[in-house]
Amino acid sequence: MNDCDNRIQKIYIKGKRFPIEVGMKKVLLTDTVIEGQRIPNGSINIYDTGGVFTDPGYQHDVRKGIPRLREAWHTDDDNVEQLATFTSSYTNRQIQDAELQKIAFPVAYLPKRGKKGHAFTQMALAKQGVITPEMEYIAIRENLGKENPDSYITPEFVRDEVAAGRAVIPCNPNHPEAEPMIIGSKFFVKINTNIGNSALGSSIEEEVEKSVYSARLGGDTLMDLSTGKHIHQTREWIIRNCPVPMGTVPMYQALEKVNGKASELTWEMYRDTLIEQCEQGVDYFTIHAGLLQHLLPAVAKRLTGCVSRGGSIMAKWMKDHNEENFLYTHWDDICDILAAYDVAVSIGDGLRPGSTHDANDEAQLGELKVMGELCQRAWAKNVQVLIEGPGHVPMDKIKENMELQKDWCHGAPFYTLGPLTIDIAPAYDHITSAIGAAMIGWFGTAMLCYVTPKEHLALPNKDDVREGIITYKIAAHAADLAKHHPMAGERDDALSKARFEFRWIDQFNLSLDPEKAKEFYGVDKIKHTPYCTMCGPNFCAMRISREVSSQGKITE
Amino acid sequence: MNDCDNRIQKIYIKGKRFPIEVGMKKVLLTDTVIEGQRIPNGSINIYDTGGVFTDPGYQHDVRKGIPRLREAWHTDDDNVEQLATFTSSYTNRQIQDAELQKIAFPVAYLPKRGKKGHAFTQMALAKQGVITPEMEYIAIRENLGKENPDSYITPEFVRDEVAAGRAVIPCNPNHPEAEPMIIGSKFFVKINTNIGNSALGSSIEEEVEKSVYSARLGGDTLMDLSTGKHIHQTREWIIRNCPVPMGTVPMYQALEKVNGKASELTWEMYRDTLIEQCEQGVDYFTIHAGLLQHLLPAVAKRLTGCVSRGGSIMAKWMKDHNEENFLYTHWDDICDILAAYDVAVSIGDGLRPGSTHDANDEAQLGELKVMGELCQRAWAKNVQVLIEGPGHVPMDKIKENMELQKDWCHGAPFYTLGPLTIDIAPAYDHITSAIGAAMIGWFGTAMLCYVTPKEHLALPNKDDVREGIITYKIAAHAADLAKHHPMAGERDDALSKARFEFRWIDQFNLSLDPEKAKEFYGVDKIKHTPYCTMCGPNFCAMRISREVSSQGKITE
Repeated sequence: MNDCDNRIQKIYIKGKRFPIEVGMKKVLLTDTVIEGQRIPNGSINIYDTGGVFTDPGYQHDVRKGIPRLREAWHTDDDNVEQLATFTSSYTNRQIQDAELQKIAFPVAYLPKRGKKGHAFTQMALAKQGVITPEMEYIAIRENLGKENPDSYITPEFVRDEVAAGRAVIPCNPNHPEAEPMIIGSKFFVKINTNIGNSALGSSIEEEVEKSVYSARLGGDTLMDLSTGKHIHQTREWIIRNCPVPMGTVPMYQALEKVNGKASELTWEMYRDTLIEQCEQGVDYFTIHAGLLQHLLPAVAKRLTGCVSRGGSIMAKWMKDHNEENFLYTHWDDICDILAAYDVAVSIGDGLRPGSTHDANDEAQLGELKVMGELCQRAWAKNVQVLIEGPGHVPMDKIKENMELQKDWCHGAPFYTLGPLTIDIAPAYDHITSAIGAAMIGWFGTAMLCYVTPKEHLALPNKDDVREGIITYKIAAHAADLAKHHPMAGERDDALSKARFEFRWIDQFNLSLDPEKAKEFYGVDKIKHTPYCTMCGPNFCAMRISREVSSQGKITE
Repeated sequence: MNDCDNRIQKIYIKGKRFPIEVGMKKVLLTDTVIEGQRIPNGSINIYDTGGVFTDPGYQHDVRKGIPRLREAWHTDDDNVEQLATFTSSYTNRQIQDAELQKIAFPVAYLPKRGKKGHAFTQMALAKQGVITPEMEYIAIRENLGKENPDSYITPEFVRDEVAAGRAVIPCNPNHPEAEPMIIGSKFFVKINTNIGNSALGSSIEEEVEKSVYSARLGGDTLMDLSTGKHIHQTREWIIRNCPVPMGTVPMYQALEKVNGKASELTWEMYRDTLIEQCEQGVDYFTIHAGLLQHLLPAVAKRLTGCVSRGGSIMAKWMKDHNEENFLYTHWDDICDILAAYDVAVSIGDGLRPGSTHDANDEAQLGELKVMGELCQRAWAKNVQVLIEGPGHVPMDKIKENMELQKDWCHGAPFYTLGPLTIDIAPAYDHITSAIGAAMIGWFGTAMLCYVTPKEHLALPNKDDVREGIITYKIAAHAADLAKHHPMAGERDDALSKARFEFRWIDQFNLSLDPEKAKEFYGVDKIKHTPYCTMCGPNFCAMRISREVSSQGKITE
């Protein structure tokens, strides 16, 4: 096993413009040995979301949190000020509660906020022509640290995509632990993982562990969807230990604050929740502002109504109050808050179809149009925007979804849940949805929200999280290959070459889940078997093929 | 659990033209109970590949084999004669070996063969305008036993598709145990599963058990790819207990007969192997007759050469002898044998790409052209034809594959392995390939050869077989929904309605793998929870949605 592990290294590529160091994995390939002659195969760099957790030299202490990477890049940033106290009244009440302090994260950081009149979001700076350290970091990361003259991805290109709203860099200054990454259709397709305790289970420790686990395995962003006790404290622990951008649905916490009674929700309380989370370091918010009163009759016609938690809460509020969605009526206020912390908004699709039957219907498409309007209003305030998408959609209706989204939402990155392509496979919805996710990723979706095997059935455990993440890495990578990301194919070709030459160690090290591949193959056999376990020596097509093509016999 | 099981019944729908009974599953749905009022939901029929094994009244004795269903339909068939002895010299040697008789199947059936000058294959009869019992059986089966005036699938339609070569009914009269099914793009997408011992493991009992398991779970056909000892006897046991059509690659056994030495293969010995297997009841053969000498230079240019076992064997034979592929030069002889037993041919793609790098290359496409020629020659002799396809293909190259196959192979059904859309996920290749399989199924592929999680790594165990089958049922169903098979959506809608009404028992019974879904949900909670385990009661979108749309509260 060590033979495998010693060949995966963590490397850091230095920036040219800024004092940044971009971490990634480097796989040192073994030699091809033909008839006793050694031919080196070099190395392959791999995009790494694990941050310090994949650096073998790093000692983690969950009570201290991980290094605050981006803090050093902005020490003399004139746009941002450090506040003397928290702005949210809820936060202040939590701090003053001695009982809650026992479970609070041990280190307190005061919040940062953009100065009044200083437009400092990545989008605002991009529009001004500024290249930020984050943009250079991303260009290096997306090129896997290679000087690739054929790659269109340069810091300037990153800037231009962000300026146009076609890409989002979620990077709240209050979460400097997060490594910069980008969500946009011209870049690697990203995957989001969800964690979160509910009223029915799981603890703070478990959630932190799951979040670290998710980042190590390849989750590009993480949404904390907790709805149970101590949401504030759980989130703080996670953020301080989280190397990837983090998202939330602030409505979940708001509802907890009114004991689950949707009709008691108010704008003031929601506003305070937004600020509370902005100052903790949440990088993007899902906000269901597109579900309006005029769309509710279309929901009643559906087979499966409204299956979005945030959406159904707002629908109930609108019905109880007979008023328009307050997230919509306060949209400008929301955007002002988000712009002050460079928190991106992910406009939630409260009316995503919950069954293939309801796909692309009047309710879903009606909401999508509203989302397009909200997008432009957010951009006017330099708030970065993602658009959330379905849901359950049969394969033949996926492309239409993507095309309408591009058209109506002006090129803002699409962020979809799956979509699930059939409804009849509970316990396998990671697969029913990976099919749709791969396709919509190819068509242009920028980020895929993962689905685990427990979808529709139960909360995922660690095994489910692993299964969900790897399945979505597969979907994202399939999309990257199909859309010709300049760096996508190198790793496949290296693994295929290793396969044809029976270099098992390299096959494992280059794979998305080396541990499981090794386990299936049988660790004891890893070395030097010049045929596969499936067919045995006489039926090894690759062995025979080498012979037929006079490619020489693999001798080691 | 009994609550679930008693609601899945086995039913038999009688034919109108012929004395046939088409078996399928019927799920009796529970009532919707709104505010105490019961509203019945009827039932849903489900396509069932399990034959007698899913009939609770059937007692299986592996030593007797399963009922010979189709024998009674053809008692006065003037086209077919019962032979007095076996034609294959190899078979006769096996029968005369006392030692081998100890492991032989206990009941011996003499072979049937088409009479000289009588064209009796399903294709021959279809061309003559005849509707066979098999065709009516298939029409009933594809309509799920429903009288559906909107469905284009009638016995006449089945006949016309078979006559045109666009669909195949694999039904060797020597395998009357198999229930008729059809492979064609206008019908349900089918899945094939592979079993087979190799030099490295597994026994006859295990293989029979796996074949039964495969049919029960949803495998539409079964390929026995055994390459180890006692291939002849293993196959006999499997066929006599197999309710689905069975395929083989006769070359594998031929190679065993010459102790793995490809250069010693001869046409005479291969011919005897074909006849041996025709008379045992194999329903279709994979024959790698399209890999010709002029294509070998293109193979040497590839990243992963030739990865087909049958293909590499023939490539080696051609190189050793410096002669053209004898399967090609003897194609007419092969077709004459196949026509005499109505065994379909599945023209093997010896040059399927073994990596995304090699997809749609000169070697692959060159072979596809030859396959088109072979197809027409087989049709001229009334042999039913499938065309095998890749392999590893990135998503953006899948459609081209399908379109070229349709064009060059004149509409013959396409039968593909995956395709795998990326190369970097060993241990998850059921998923990398399900993405490609779903897409190519939608584009028109008629049958998908399953891939298990152990692909590239090891032989699959029972769990892997289950995972592979369910994954491929998902891909096939996603394709059926997308291509609008007239009966595809009913089950999804029924499950979605059940989901929206918290009818858990129905959700499980309608799902592709009820056992796993129940296991994940937690069996103890099956009854009457009006919200899901994931979100808890306050955050149940579906509960709130019902309320908002005034759909009444689910009370049971």
